[in-house]
Amino acid sequence: MARFDVLGIGNAIVDVVARVEDRFLSRHDMRKGGMALIDAAAAEALYAAMPAGIESSGGSAANTCAVAAGLGARVAYLGKVADDQLGGVFRHDIEAAGVAFPSDPLAGGAPTARCLILVTPDGQRTMNTYLGACTAFSAADVDPVLVTEAELLYLEGYLFDPPAAQEAFRRAAAAAHAAGRRVALSLSDAFCVDRHRAAFRELVTRDIDILFANETEITALYETDRFEDAAEQARAEVALAALTRGADGSLVLRGAESVAIPAAPATVVDTTGAGDAYAAGFLAGLAAGRALAACGRLGSAAAAAAIAGMGARPAVDLRALAAAAG
Amino acid sequence: MARFDVLGIGNAIVDVVARVEDRFLSRHDMRKGGMALIDAAAAEALYAAMPAGIESSGGSAANTCAVAAGLGARVAYLGKVADDQLGGVFRHDIEAAGVAFPSDPLAGGAPTARCLILVTPDGQRTMNTYLGACTAFSAADVDPVLVTEAELLYLEGYLFDPPAAQEAFRRAAAAAHAAGRRVALSLSDAFCVDRHRAAFRELVTRDIDILFANETEITALYETDRFEDAAEQARAEVALAALTRGADGSLVLRGAESVAIPAAPATVVDTTGAGDAYAAGFLAGLAAGRALAACGRLGSAAAAAAIAGMGARPAVDLRALAAAAG
Repeated sequence: MARFDVLGIGNAIVDVVARVEDRFLSRHDMRKGGMALIDAAAAEALYAAMPAGIESSGGSAANTCAVAAGLGARVAYLGKVADDQLGGVFRHDIEAAGVAFPSDPLAGGAPTARCLILVTPDGQRTMNTYLGACTAFSAADVDPVLVTEAELLYLEGYLFDPPAAQEAFRRAAAAAHAAGRRVALSLSDAFCVDRHRAAFRELVTRDIDILFANETEITALYETDRFEDAAEQARAEVALAALTRGADGSLVLRGAESVAIPAAPATVVDTTGAGDAYAAGFLAGLAAGRALAACGRLGSAAAAAAIAGMGARPAVDLRALAAAAG
Repeated sequence: MARFDVLGIGNAIVDVVARVEDRFLSRHDMRKGGMALIDAAAAEALYAAMPAGIESSGGSAANTCAVAAGLGARVAYLGKVADDQLGGVFRHDIEAAGVAFPSDPLAGGAPTARCLILVTPDGQRTMNTYLGACTAFSAADVDPVLVTEAELLYLEGYLFDPPAAQEAFRRAAAAAHAAGRRVALSLSDAFCVDRHRAAFRELVTRDIDILFANETEITALYETDRFEDAAEQARAEVALAALTRGADGSLVLRGAESVAIPAAPATVVDTTGAGDAYAAGFLAGLAAGRALAACGRLGSAAAAAAIAGMGARPAVDLRALAAAAG
């Protein structure tokens, strides 16, 4: 038996979440619902303009790992924080969630990454990420032995942004496949797909066994307006695809099989982390050997829990949630 | 006209809030609902044992200042953070709330204070504070000119814990009175009252014009089991007392006058900051020249908003709240 069900690799980020009116986004030229990369000076200026917020550990794959561990999966995570207070917060939180986090912190370089998240009254989140220490994550940070010890390697699409991480990403995928493991990818963000479409297309067809994406991401990947067309392309290119559609639930595709899963009822407080939590539930279901429909339902339940509170990770008892989701 | 309605002085603290079961408190010998002081080693050990949390700016008087500013009062605050990431978070948040914060950060000493807050399923919070940089706050940090520029000096009882702050506290009160200003005190915590009862009794009778306390604090101050007895002693000793009783509302006493104010309806998520928010509403009402009953209602409304979410400061639009509270 493998030591871990899931090994996630991603940008290790602390979120700073604040509520703003829609006009704050337009005044700062932000695309609602997206994630923009910003440098240290822009992060400082935006932070100064933001209202008071709350800080919590984030990072897309890290969120997925924390939630999957809460749902009972055996999980490890690799990502680069700095040797500073926010890095300590990130480490505490992911370890407290039950995730092994063997990455060494970066000493003397950029500070721990942060994502300035603006939540509008409709519950939508708009993200601005200063990558900080994440830009130092490289292939040297991926222990190939650890990769072979996990049933599934889970990568976030955002890793295509820091240049050295792309190489780490490819090396990890190669090590996983050489050991007969599966590789999953989350597309992360439609704008991230736009920035790296050719690389994503090549990776998906060549290296990805399980693909997670929402509607805007999958249609961006295949440059089509029709979700149905994008879904059929995904079906042809990957062994398993889980495509989320917000309140319309998700569609899971495996070969000729199609499983439609409804969204779980949720009061929308903050949609940050909904997709990450869906992937967590789905992966925890896979790790437990559940049928696709059950994996999807667990994904929906985890996403609903994430949406119901501020911050990316649900504050509820995840094992009780898993039991309730059947 | 004074430049500020309120000048608050307190321990400048970043809160780390996590949900735990009651058994976590008993396992760590904590008194539910109280605040315990812990040293750096104990803080590190407790943090390691805690679940993942969220971080937000706290500190009792700082919370009161942030909320009062949100309600329209002109507010300044003095407190000691370190020159570190959490100190930066504290500064950002209190300034973003509209509070002037002229205190210099501490360089090269202890890190910014943090309060590890455990929230049990009943919504009660149990606090463990590592004072860090706050222990460096001294009389030298109080600009007497600033004190004279505020209608009201607002002090938190917790200032009696770091030794040098007591002296700062007395100097500030003397400067305020010399300029014909009023001095308010919040008793903060029954255990804090127990630790410093004689000093509190002397201060209240000699220097305090407006006293804020909850039921357990005021009965601890006067060493009685009966709230009514404690209330009558407060009436005799201070010009104005606002005594809160949780779901039973508050009682405001001024000379022979007694005003009973109901609690505002609230769904209890996390009671952290309820008393601080009540004081904020009350002070904002006083600053706006409102009658005592209206001040109390604004206090109740602000407390209800604080209770409805995680963290000490309400995440709602406080001006709308003030308008709704009449």
